[in-house]
Amino acid sequence: MQNPVLVEVTRGQMVESRHRGMVSVVDSDGATVMALGDVESPVFPRSAVKSMQALLLVESGAADAYGFGDKELALACSSHSGEPEHIALAGQMVARAGLSEADFECGSHWSFEPKVLIDQVRAGPKPNQLGNNCSGKHAGFLCLSCHAGVDHHGYVGYDHFVQSSIRDVMADLTGTPLGHDNCGTDGCSIPTYASPLASIAHGFARMVSGTGLGPERAKAAKRLMASCMAEPFYVAGTGRACTELMQMAPGRIFAKTGAEGVFCATLPEKGYGIALKCEDGATRGAEAMIGAVLAKLFADDEELSSRLADWSRKTMKNWNGIEVGHIRPAGDLA
Amino acid sequence: MQNPVLVEVTRGQMVESRHRGMVSVVDSDGATVMALGDVESPVFPRSAVKSMQALLLVESGAADAYGFGDKELALACSSHSGEPEHIALAGQMVARAGLSEADFECGSHWSFEPKVLIDQVRAGPKPNQLGNNCSGKHAGFLCLSCHAGVDHHGYVGYDHFVQSSIRDVMADLTGTPLGHDNCGTDGCSIPTYASPLASIAHGFARMVSGTGLGPERAKAAKRLMASCMAEPFYVAGTGRACTELMQMAPGRIFAKTGAEGVFCATLPEKGYGIALKCEDGATRGAEAMIGAVLAKLFADDEELSSRLADWSRKTMKNWNGIEVGHIRPAGDLA
Repeated sequence: MQNPVLVEVTRGQMVESRHRGMVSVVDSDGATVMALGDVESPVFPRSAVKSMQALLLVESGAADAYGFGDKELALACSSHSGEPEHIALAGQMVARAGLSEADFECGSHWSFEPKVLIDQVRAGPKPNQLGNNCSGKHAGFLCLSCHAGVDHHGYVGYDHFVQSSIRDVMADLTGTPLGHDNCGTDGCSIPTYASPLASIAHGFARMVSGTGLGPERAKAAKRLMASCMAEPFYVAGTGRACTELMQMAPGRIFAKTGAEGVFCATLPEKGYGIALKCEDGATRGAEAMIGAVLAKLFADDEELSSRLADWSRKTMKNWNGIEVGHIRPAGDLA
Repeated sequence: MQNPVLVEVTRGQMVESRHRGMVSVVDSDGATVMALGDVESPVFPRSAVKSMQALLLVESGAADAYGFGDKELALACSSHSGEPEHIALAGQMVARAGLSEADFECGSHWSFEPKVLIDQVRAGPKPNQLGNNCSGKHAGFLCLSCHAGVDHHGYVGYDHFVQSSIRDVMADLTGTPLGHDNCGTDGCSIPTYASPLASIAHGFARMVSGTGLGPERAKAAKRLMASCMAEPFYVAGTGRACTELMQMAPGRIFAKTGAEGVFCATLPEKGYGIALKCEDGATRGAEAMIGAVLAKLFADDEELSSRLADWSRKTMKNWNGIEVGHIRPAGDLA
């Protein structure tokens, strides 16, 4: 199946590059609301499912035991930019469980955001694990493990309590078997499992609607998404897509990106789950796609739909500030 | 026309992302050696044609008048990483014409290479125009203008002597009309013109073989490519694809990348010109494609072909140094 061109990058009056994609939107009953391209082949959702991976932190009572509020839960679901607030909060979260930076197993990297990277270089010789974009998720993993009384060492491993528990939760949510056959290793060293986009979208529809989930899981899912929507800066950072989308319509959009061009979202008022991937893995493609998909799904709210459509189109300027082209939705998303 | 998948990005045992592309290889008579995907629709070659844009610098006698050797000519054809040697040489080139950093019209940016960027941040508050990846090309433009006795102010403009002369040269080389209709603005503010990949490849075949060119232009073309092959560090920088490819087979491969997934090359011993584009604009896709194409074209040299094929496959590691997947040629390039 050929995935359709959903985003065009223009220069002058011509199209310079094209991004193809696959989009699945599913309602709380599992019915297809929108399907573009191949939504049945397995896709690694990567960081877009961090809210699913954080469910047990809440469901187990660990979040309450450590006194986590919206900011901490948002950071547990985040791919943050490594801004000072993100780094400080990740450290504070594990301190509640008596742990520190050395207990993380995610590895270190400089911020992916050029402006933050420059500040980091000026502030010190090198980043530590608290600056890893996944440190909030890992803080959640460490706290889950400590609260359960399980040795946290090796918590990123496939067979550790943390990862095997999360695998069960995600298999339940997406309705797909997860195991060695469809497993890869994520950037932060934890297992990531490939599932059809339609199954991932259905998992998010279950999370946002609670349909088919036990009462504790349904409550935990709603609480996590509410925390992210209440504190969108802690889900990503300054100027980032997830943060901006959730700031645009407070309480009405939960949105989370993943590496290699994935974007997932839920719309609480409609009970929809959304999962999409840019075929080539480009972030700019996935961002334009999610903006355009959200604009279509909110067609009944002209004002919001128009703002989302505007957001989905980006003007590109060169080093002298001259406008040289655009990134814009195309084809079925135009 | 659907462009074929030519590169796959894997994670674990699965394909995670896919890059489609178009490839044209043309011999010195203009005959097609290889054609994959749509090679007839116009493509912006961007920085991949900097050697074409530098022809007049040599042909006019400016390069000799200012005493330029291989390093200066390589830099005039470069998209450099902004390493100290690149920045120093760009400044020295325009100093020969009595000019300085303030005369450049390319704008400033931090290096695109994270390691160089970190060094730049540690060295000073912000980059200047000499650090622009196009500063070598602009140094050539400034010197061309000064040598011709033309006021250099506004040399990036469509109607300035520099750009109108270059337009004529490139129309001649590619055999395609270039003008406002197929013009965009490049990152460094000069006009860039979209032409079919097959025409761009033919232009490079003309440059490397001299076929159909006047003796002065043929000589200038050979000299520029020889300079780039002699000083590949000055065409890109440490660890960069253009530099590595030219280091791999000294004097046998001229290679130059362009933004948005373009790669062009020539093979002097075969008289081939090569132009390719990754449909979605990804550099990693274009790099795997050019490596695989070169490996195929050097099939008669098993040792070189094998090294090029190895180079075209990249292993991806995560923040803990764990191997997570590969970038590899696929389909007709597998």
